[in-house]
Amino acid sequence: MKPIKISEAVVRRLPIYLRFLNELSLSNIQTVSSQDLGEKLDLNPAQIRKDLAYFGEFGRKGVGYNVDYLIEKIRQILKLDKMMNVALVGTGNLGRALCNYSMYIKDNMKIVAVFDADESKKGTLINHLTVQPMQELSRSVKQLDISVGIITVPAVEAQNVAEQFVDAGIRGILNFAPVVLKASPGVRIHNADFTAELLSLAYYMDTINGSKEGDGAL
Amino acid sequence: MKPIKISEAVVRRLPIYLRFLNELSLSNIQTVSSQDLGEKLDLNPAQIRKDLAYFGEFGRKGVGYNVDYLIEKIRQILKLDKMMNVALVGTGNLGRALCNYSMYIKDNMKIVAVFDADESKKGTLINHLTVQPMQELSRSVKQLDISVGIITVPAVEAQNVAEQFVDAGIRGILNFAPVVLKASPGVRIHNADFTAELLSLAYYMDTINGSKEGDGAL
Repeated sequence: MKPIKISEAVVRRLPIYLRFLNELSLSNIQTVSSQDLGEKLDLNPAQIRKDLAYFGEFGRKGVGYNVDYLIEKIRQILKLDKMMNVALVGTGNLGRALCNYSMYIKDNMKIVAVFDADESKKGTLINHLTVQPMQELSRSVKQLDISVGIITVPAVEAQNVAEQFVDAGIRGILNFAPVVLKASPGVRIHNADFTAELLSLAYYMDTINGSKEGDGAL
Repeated sequence: MKPIKISEAVVRRLPIYLRFLNELSLSNIQTVSSQDLGEKLDLNPAQIRKDLAYFGEFGRKGVGYNVDYLIEKIRQILKLDKMMNVALVGTGNLGRALCNYSMYIKDNMKIVAVFDADESKKGTLINHLTVQPMQELSRSVKQLDISVGIITVPAVEAQNVAEQFVDAGIRGILNFAPVVLKASPGVRIHNADFTAELLSLAYYMDTINGSKEGDGAL
């Protein structure tokens, strides 16, 4: 399949569409309008129609989108139509939470190997996965055909883990450590930077309470 | 202080500047150039100068920015110059990870109360905080002057928790559940949607391995 060039903003919205469409499918709902999608996902229906039109004419006026067809298409576009194996490094609370998080499986991404630099954790079990020492990373990545790595180690260790991922052949990294990692060429790094999300909330708090008015505040 | 209207993109970058500036300050580094900031944070130096110029003339040509002054200014802008109290609902692995995460304190955001709908968790301790039942939420929010809430419950329960937050008087929510929440007017919701970040990585994997060339892939 020839890759289509899609804007980053659209690529980030597609998993959100996909998640909601999966819910609809599970509830045996077969069609959905851009209006419904927009309302549920807090997005502009026109934006949704534009995003989806990117990939051809999926929807029909007055009928809406066929849910299962749209799921299949979005999976194809995101390259989630085949299983993608994931490695995770760092088995603190956050790492363990992610390992136990079942939704990956449904969307064809699955954590298949878990690592920790702390030798004392070697051999412990997290959701049926055995914690391995870092020396095993490279071998596991090749053996299990792992293409994505998740970093849940403290900030000071994150760059080092990222480099070990890249050396092992991983080309996609999701970083949870509160630090900006240096990306090697050809490697894609996404940040799950919840501390930035949290701190930026503060800015809006005062704005909401102090200077906006009459918008339903208690 | 009269609030300045700042674009969302800038508000989201400020905590990332702040974090790095805090590191510099801890290392007793007193000045930093937009060039250094850009390199470390993987941002365009011109963008950084533009972001910071928003708030007056901080930097001096050839000298750079005074680190501690810039920290103080960004904290003021983000309204992090006073302590902001945070409540968390959902004490699974992710909730516990967040409670143990110490950086909040440094940036004047602190989790001060923890709740779980599961009665059997009542009274257990997480990082010196006692898990409380949901019935205590409203009282605690008032008593401890809590303005921000974090949601780390399963997707099906998240909207209900958000509504309880809003009823209790909370106006800023950081949602970790993989679902889009309906926002009440005057309430700001940020999503820490790491599943979307993870799934969107897949799109770039094939692009990197398949269609881009000669950019340093092993």
